[in-house]
Amino acid sequence: MTTEIFDDVSFQAVLDRFAKIVGPAHALTDAADIAPFVTEHRGLYPGLTRLVLKPGSVEEVGRILKLGSETGTAIVPQGGNTGLVGGGVPDRSGRQVVLSLSRLNRIREVDTLSNTITAEAGVILQSLHDAAEAVDRLFPLSLASQGSCEIGGNLSTNAGGTAVLAYGNARELCLGVEVVLPTGEIFDDLRKLKKDNTGYDLKNLFVGAEGTLGVITAAVLKLFPKPRGKEVAFAGLVSPEAALDLLGRAQERAGSGLTAFELIGARPIEFALRHLSGGVAPLADQWPWYVLMEVSSSRSAEEARATIEEILGEALEAELVGDAVIAASLAQAAAFWKLREDISDAQKPEGASIKHDISVPVASIPAFIARAAEAVASVSPQARVVCFGHMGDGNLHYNVSQPVGADPKEYLALYKPMNKAVHDVVRDLGGSISAEHGIGQMKRAELALTAPPVALDLMRRVKAAFDPAGIMNPGKVI
Amino acid sequence: MTTEIFDDVSFQAVLDRFAKIVGPAHALTDAADIAPFVTEHRGLYPGLTRLVLKPGSVEEVGRILKLGSETGTAIVPQGGNTGLVGGGVPDRSGRQVVLSLSRLNRIREVDTLSNTITAEAGVILQSLHDAAEAVDRLFPLSLASQGSCEIGGNLSTNAGGTAVLAYGNARELCLGVEVVLPTGEIFDDLRKLKKDNTGYDLKNLFVGAEGTLGVITAAVLKLFPKPRGKEVAFAGLVSPEAALDLLGRAQERAGSGLTAFELIGARPIEFALRHLSGGVAPLADQWPWYVLMEVSSSRSAEEARATIEEILGEALEAELVGDAVIAASLAQAAAFWKLREDISDAQKPEGASIKHDISVPVASIPAFIARAAEAVASVSPQARVVCFGHMGDGNLHYNVSQPVGADPKEYLALYKPMNKAVHDVVRDLGGSISAEHGIGQMKRAELALTAPPVALDLMRRVKAAFDPAGIMNPGKVI
Repeated sequence: MTTEIFDDVSFQAVLDRFAKIVGPAHALTDAADIAPFVTEHRGLYPGLTRLVLKPGSVEEVGRILKLGSETGTAIVPQGGNTGLVGGGVPDRSGRQVVLSLSRLNRIREVDTLSNTITAEAGVILQSLHDAAEAVDRLFPLSLASQGSCEIGGNLSTNAGGTAVLAYGNARELCLGVEVVLPTGEIFDDLRKLKKDNTGYDLKNLFVGAEGTLGVITAAVLKLFPKPRGKEVAFAGLVSPEAALDLLGRAQERAGSGLTAFELIGARPIEFALRHLSGGVAPLADQWPWYVLMEVSSSRSAEEARATIEEILGEALEAELVGDAVIAASLAQAAAFWKLREDISDAQKPEGASIKHDISVPVASIPAFIARAAEAVASVSPQARVVCFGHMGDGNLHYNVSQPVGADPKEYLALYKPMNKAVHDVVRDLGGSISAEHGIGQMKRAELALTAPPVALDLMRRVKAAFDPAGIMNPGKVI
Repeated sequence: MTTEIFDDVSFQAVLDRFAKIVGPAHALTDAADIAPFVTEHRGLYPGLTRLVLKPGSVEEVGRILKLGSETGTAIVPQGGNTGLVGGGVPDRSGRQVVLSLSRLNRIREVDTLSNTITAEAGVILQSLHDAAEAVDRLFPLSLASQGSCEIGGNLSTNAGGTAVLAYGNARELCLGVEVVLPTGEIFDDLRKLKKDNTGYDLKNLFVGAEGTLGVITAAVLKLFPKPRGKEVAFAGLVSPEAALDLLGRAQERAGSGLTAFELIGARPIEFALRHLSGGVAPLADQWPWYVLMEVSSSRSAEEARATIEEILGEALEAELVGDAVIAASLAQAAAFWKLREDISDAQKPEGASIKHDISVPVASIPAFIARAAEAVASVSPQARVVCFGHMGDGNLHYNVSQPVGADPKEYLALYKPMNKAVHDVVRDLGGSISAEHGIGQMKRAELALTAPPVALDLMRRVKAAFDPAGIMNPGKVI
């Protein structure tokens, strides 16, 4: 490691040079100031650093990376620090410098004719929603953390969320990027083009690279016409097979107007109703499975309503759906969504949880659910599966809560065998062990062990080609 | 060049080893057999080769590339050979071996639950349409050459076409790829996943690389529900500004149901009506500009009809559109589309033509049209602009026919200054000099001269990392 050539005194001198680039007000060195930047909110990856840099311009980011390259100092880019795999926090060496993009928070342009918005990395996702709303447009990327996550992080992790089904993930919402390379050079590909076949697709390498190839400092994002109608329904079903059938019919009927299709097991609903104040069961009876479905119409509320009624009417008649309710008001629609979004929090009072963020081909969702349940039982017979997620994308958050009354620590000791059991099923079905959260620190070792060697080799070649000195977010992804 | 270490005798011995891999029936060496593979249909890039290989399996492709690497023999992958930039034909050295993927033409699987189709590189695009149709689905990629182009080529060039507006280009329609690397190794990423965040996006590097990084041998592609209603209208307008306004309103009204929005100048319509038998003017009067608009509905023909009527009704009232007609039958809809698709052919009887495949931000289309006309006039005052294309994508085919009565050769001598004049406007507007046709041989020098050095450097690093021996389609793209 290049950093080891420095003793502490000379390392401090290097840190001082970094600090000078942003000025003392934006170079955090006090432990209390630094604390929020060195660990993520689940506290799984407590890191250390002596310096957090908060540059105020792209040019400052360039100077920071240039100095990083010259001195062999590792740089850890960070957005809103809402990631779930430890991708945005430093390791425990104390030799990594955190680069916060939060001050680069300008919306540079909104173009309602081209339907684009050009935003800097530090713009909070909710602010993008608001800016789109202000010009009667939609920026569809929707995550539970949208009040604090930043678009640079969303792009670096290729964030997913609940609107992927109709609008695509962060990658598909991005037309162009501005990236500072490890050398400090700026790759300016900040274009508004829907079609551009002039050479290799560099943009999509940086998107999803979790800051290991360069730092995304700005992006051109797609805006969409705001739907004039949106209807949300909550349905009870007997099985994942029925949900798959319902999904097919809903897609056929609504096409790209099917803007959400979330599958939720009975247990997560039970947890949410038990632990979250104000939660009301949407349906009178309990069902083994639920679907939260949203249909949008570009033309009218009536059309959205007619479409969702057609879908549910057909499904009830075909006995795919046992019971269903369409939200009668915006408040009820919001309550349905809140129930869905509160599931993670509702798991906490139930004790320790081992989580998975998986995807499989949509057709394999029922097989996955059946086989994963067996896999879980083989590791911990009384563990409680909490299964929910974006079924329309083949993406489930397959979380496993500890047995009632078990010791959390003892249960968490099963983390690795549980992961392996579930992920073996995923791999066998041609799936992905990280559908939307990324690799970060959490899944790096597993990726190295289980990804096809040819793919790993290609990724390592990309990393070496783009970041030969290895200063960009080392210890993450690859 | 590694190839230069071979004299002719030893080069022939190498060719014999290649031929042995596929067997004599599939190793073409006769000039007559080879002829269709060494030049594209416009005849702009006549190449030479002594050997065309037609492997019948992915494993044979692997052995061919491995031998290519071992002997430093350049390999030129070729699909349906319908490309427009000379990307799929060999150079004139006679030292490049053509690798035709046409025999890898199996549809491996159609999955109507996951809405995917898995096809080998040599499957003709029309066959994919037919296979989708057979299961009541849509594969949207639509090009004039779809009866002969192959999906491997479509992906390698990231093909666009008329359905990009609603469904995306070839890249966005592709979920996974199988690629043979220059070493002969197989990168198997043939997955059906809508979400997968396990490391760098390698797939999108191969898509659009024009065979310079590896050979795509198969892909998983997205299928869509077949729209139940589709309406096509032809409108006459006074200006590109009016067309831009109409586009905005149509998107707002139809959302993703706006499945085509083609802008066509008065001259291309005039050419098409003059030269193509059976062409009938859709509107009674002549207009400076026309829009061919298609609206689809997942629900019903009535809904598509109501939507397109709303759009046109509003536009007529706002005087954006001077006149408009909605196709009264499938035959009339097909006739509207034929008029649009025949424009290229209709240019031929008008003499020589200098063509451009550009994109700009959608909002800049009117400015581009105004400024490019001046640029053209500065090079050849009497040259006739033939402007048409996928306005919804910001992509125009900006072709310039020779002045009436001019000498074609003399006119074509203006190719470079004409390109430069038009492309300078494109670059000034933040556009692309190759929106959908790629770089190939045609635009390689221009890319090298005009792309940002940082981008070129990154592309060269990718090329060196993936194809260090430089055997993959040398002389193309980068």
